[in-house]
Amino acid sequence: MALVVIGGVAAGMSAAARARRLDAGLEIVVLEKGPVISYGACGLPYFVEGRVRDPSQLIVYTPEYFRKQRNIDVRTGARVISIAHSRRELVLEEGGRVRYSRLIVATGARADMQAVAGARQPHVFPLQTLDDAVRMHRFLTEPRAQGPPRRAVVIGAGYIGVEAADALRRNGLRVTILERSDHALGRNDPPFTLAVRRVLEEHGVELRCGIAVEAIEADHVAGVPCDMVVLAAGFKPNVELAAEAGIELGRSGAIRTTDRMETSVPGIYAAGDCAEVTHLVTGRPVYLPLGTTANKAGRVAGANAAGGRERFAGIVGTSIVGIFGTAFASTGLSAEQARAEGFDPVAARIEARARPSYFEGAMTTVELVADRATRRLLGGSVIGDRDAAGRINVIATALTAHLTVDDFEQLDLAYAPPFSTVWDPLLIAAQQLGKM
Amino acid sequence: MALVVIGGVAAGMSAAARARRLDAGLEIVVLEKGPVISYGACGLPYFVEGRVRDPSQLIVYTPEYFRKQRNIDVRTGARVISIAHSRRELVLEEGGRVRYSRLIVATGARADMQAVAGARQPHVFPLQTLDDAVRMHRFLTEPRAQGPPRRAVVIGAGYIGVEAADALRRNGLRVTILERSDHALGRNDPPFTLAVRRVLEEHGVELRCGIAVEAIEADHVAGVPCDMVVLAAGFKPNVELAAEAGIELGRSGAIRTTDRMETSVPGIYAAGDCAEVTHLVTGRPVYLPLGTTANKAGRVAGANAAGGRERFAGIVGTSIVGIFGTAFASTGLSAEQARAEGFDPVAARIEARARPSYFEGAMTTVELVADRATRRLLGGSVIGDRDAAGRINVIATALTAHLTVDDFEQLDLAYAPPFSTVWDPLLIAAQQLGKM
Repeated sequence: MALVVIGGVAAGMSAAARARRLDAGLEIVVLEKGPVISYGACGLPYFVEGRVRDPSQLIVYTPEYFRKQRNIDVRTGARVISIAHSRRELVLEEGGRVRYSRLIVATGARADMQAVAGARQPHVFPLQTLDDAVRMHRFLTEPRAQGPPRRAVVIGAGYIGVEAADALRRNGLRVTILERSDHALGRNDPPFTLAVRRVLEEHGVELRCGIAVEAIEADHVAGVPCDMVVLAAGFKPNVELAAEAGIELGRSGAIRTTDRMETSVPGIYAAGDCAEVTHLVTGRPVYLPLGTTANKAGRVAGANAAGGRERFAGIVGTSIVGIFGTAFASTGLSAEQARAEGFDPVAARIEARARPSYFEGAMTTVELVADRATRRLLGGSVIGDRDAAGRINVIATALTAHLTVDDFEQLDLAYAPPFSTVWDPLLIAAQQLGKM
Repeated sequence: MALVVIGGVAAGMSAAARARRLDAGLEIVVLEKGPVISYGACGLPYFVEGRVRDPSQLIVYTPEYFRKQRNIDVRTGARVISIAHSRRELVLEEGGRVRYSRLIVATGARADMQAVAGARQPHVFPLQTLDDAVRMHRFLTEPRAQGPPRRAVVIGAGYIGVEAADALRRNGLRVTILERSDHALGRNDPPFTLAVRRVLEEHGVELRCGIAVEAIEADHVAGVPCDMVVLAAGFKPNVELAAEAGIELGRSGAIRTTDRMETSVPGIYAAGDCAEVTHLVTGRPVYLPLGTTANKAGRVAGANAAGGRERFAGIVGTSIVGIFGTAFASTGLSAEQARAEGFDPVAARIEARARPSYFEGAMTTVELVADRATRRLLGGSVIGDRDAAGRINVIATALTAHLTVDDFEQLDLAYAPPFSTVWDPLLIAAQQLGKM
């Protein structure tokens, strides 16, 4: 009987591909409710911006590819409405049933349209599926009687929100971001949020924090006039199918998993934006939906569902976003988050040149956070140019390996003038923190 | 009595500054044989190139700065000719004597001018001190009866050699590099050398390996006609002073040190280009002179000489060089080096896009090497654009933490389209290697 995967984007397709690699003879079926599979959701803002010319550029593989090259039966437009686990059977909306022996739930997440009144109006756009992006792009570019939209409100200052704001601003719109919490990019870290705010404001985007949007009106949101709205908040894991089938959810509301990516129901695995993973800094389950994690956890789910024995150790919560050319990267815990998790954190934040001035080295900001008693690193952030990616990845690797600030201070990092300074900003931050 | 440091460049000045920080009242003397201190030797090729306009841009601190701001007695033009340790006394060439209670030897290294006949001619240049670079720059730019030099031979395909070749080529010279061994950049790694050769050749620089230069003639070297020569080979640690004072040398010929950077003579420390350090992959002493290591080991030597108790764990051998805009980075051991060190290495080399094509992502090459039995990573290399620095640093961090290829494959690396692909090339290489 078949291994069936519900969901054909990052986690689902990674799982299916990995299962095929481990078992050439296994019957594998992927049921995707949407019209396309395996698209790069993280590229959607760049299609809205106009940098990606054709949405097909964001599609990594087609169903035909998987059918022909990998012998995986991919069915699009196939929405599962119930998991009847006692019969090992899925019920499809269109009426059919699909039997399985092993099941992988990779149902993803959604912007919660129910939470905000007026979210279904034609000038309101989530930015999650390829369809959403195509609809938004059309709204921006197709001739309309009232002319092109001129003012946008983006609800939510997470990654998708700020990327959408950047894309819309580059299309000439005035943009205001409304954020419920008092911080941007999901990181409780006041100086980090301040830096985000500065870059947004320098480029004419307004960020208002502490605004809980309850309704979207035809021509304004919370008093901010606008003719289009991006709904980039209230991201929710799609867990209803799993919950109804008796699969346990974690405290985050996403599906609880073991390090084999198995759910509370043996033989049913979950991965991607619907599932929890382990945070390697706290050791606790966490819901941090990202494409990178979906791919890795999906691979492990696929391997184990195909009879393998693999383990997904977990994540450290690394992310990066480009806002008008400045990179904002973070990993692990901010000092505030560390305190909330029961650590006694110490932090050091430094500004230093990323490269010598004769190689156009601009200033970069590095913050490192460590636990006072054990001196173990707990997190960090980097704000700068493109090199911020490499620097945050060094911190992420150090967190994974549980390095102390003292270990970190002596890391043998590459240096030559086109690339860095002889004391890399990471090491300067560690020296500063090491004095704690 | 004073803490005396012999040598005022990277290791020496780091040591002095650190000692001052730990002990505000200590008398600290730095004796530098040259006319300047604390210069960025790694920037010299960029002065030759013309990118750095003024050599003073490469001087980080002046003796006045150290005297006034740090209360460190820096004496330039002060060449030590002997260490009389029984009397705790240094003898200066100019005749004076300097007493010490603790001593730090940071005498650096030199291109061995004795090893090649004809190395003292006016058209032959080492590229190690600020003076060397100024002399070479003058030779390139000052009007001469016979016109500007048109053909250069660079002896040595190490970092300085290829950077000098790049700088001279950009000044319009025809350049041939002659290298004694069969590999470039000091890494026994045939595909890496092949890639270096390709980039050099694309830019009109010839690389000839397996050529042991014994003499430099007035108008040719080993049959290659030229009107100037860069001597970037035969790098030797300056250990004569130390050896004559009874300080033990390691098998590499550089000064043996403990992890406190202390020599075999208690109270005498050594750091920088004259000293060995521990290689964290092999666990053995190694001589790998680099500015980054000099700074870090110097700091530890300074701290301990001032009564502190610090430890320099060691290095993993990370380096990077830009050749005509392509970055060549490596860390740890190549497969060949690993085999020579007694490991049973497995390697995977992949090529992948560094970023999506809509963010000008070019191909990058990543190689990872692991030990077959333990699956521990042993080394790696990255060839690509500027992002190679961040990627090699992730491998360096993983080597420091003794991660396995399986740990590495699940690293939570940052992803957004302006910065990377959802499967970073590092992770693709690890997946490939993990199949071993």
